[in-house]
Amino acid sequence: MITLGLDPGISATGYGAVVFDRGSLTLERCGVWRPPQGLEFPVRLHFLFERLVALLGELRPAAVSVETVFAAKNVSSTVKLSHARGVLLAAAARFEIPVFEYEPRLVKKALVGYGQAEKPQVRAMVLALLARQRDRVPLDAADALAVAICHLHSRPPAP
Amino acid sequence: MITLGLDPGISATGYGAVVFDRGSLTLERCGVWRPPQGLEFPVRLHFLFERLVALLGELRPAAVSVETVFAAKNVSSTVKLSHARGVLLAAAARFEIPVFEYEPRLVKKALVGYGQAEKPQVRAMVLALLARQRDRVPLDAADALAVAICHLHSRPPAP
Repeated sequence: MITLGLDPGISATGYGAVVFDRGSLTLERCGVWRPPQGLEFPVRLHFLFERLVALLGELRPAAVSVETVFAAKNVSSTVKLSHARGVLLAAAARFEIPVFEYEPRLVKKALVGYGQAEKPQVRAMVLALLARQRDRVPLDAADALAVAICHLHSRPPAP
Repeated sequence: MITLGLDPGISATGYGAVVFDRGSLTLERCGVWRPPQGLEFPVRLHFLFERLVALLGELRPAAVSVETVFAAKNVSSTVKLSHARGVLLAAAARFEIPVFEYEPRLVKKALVGYGQAEKPQVRAMVLALLARQRDRVPLDAADALAVAICHLHSRPPAP
């Protein structure tokens, strides 16, 4: 059973798919989609939609996990993020894959143990958990993997 | 040449397609999509995406016109609106239809003559412009038609 974490963004959307089996976490796939900057905003959104549709069609994850929107002080950033997030959620719905949303502090708590942890701590823990596969994780995918792992913590699969 | 205006929203998305030909404005199609409230948020987003894809495939408008996001005081509303808007923009991009964005005050100015006009004034003008077709316009589609008409004002087709 694959869990796919997403870290939405119009400049870069990270994704990370993991499998948790018999107490062991395995990296299935991870990476980053970067819609070319020269494209119009709607085309960049569609770019992200298409990338996720292709990935979901291939991996067929059992769940998609994503952080809730943390309203940035910069409203424009929040608005752009929400556009990107919208197309990703719609792509998951296209495959009837349930989407689970976690507050950023819950993701931090699941990984590091407390909700005020800094991003580098979270990323370090993601890499530690993936052990020998850590070299395959680009920095931009670590946050997506964190939210996938958070989902596994919250709803561990039946033994 | 059809211009399609959109008034995005997760509860209700209005749409209005008009044709401007030889100085005369004709209503091609208008209505409202309401994703069933019982559905999960991602499913509602996908519902809107699918509706717009179907409409675009049928009408093949030359342009899609939509208001820029007016950041509401309620951030949660702005975030939801932006999710809905994201899937609609992505659907337009899927058909390679250019999307034109207008600030709310520009739409009001184009319809009523000044940017501080109230919504009812804008809607009344939309209905007046559509004259004998006005009975076909539900209230929720009037704002979508307004932004379509704003686009025609801003970029009148060559004579």
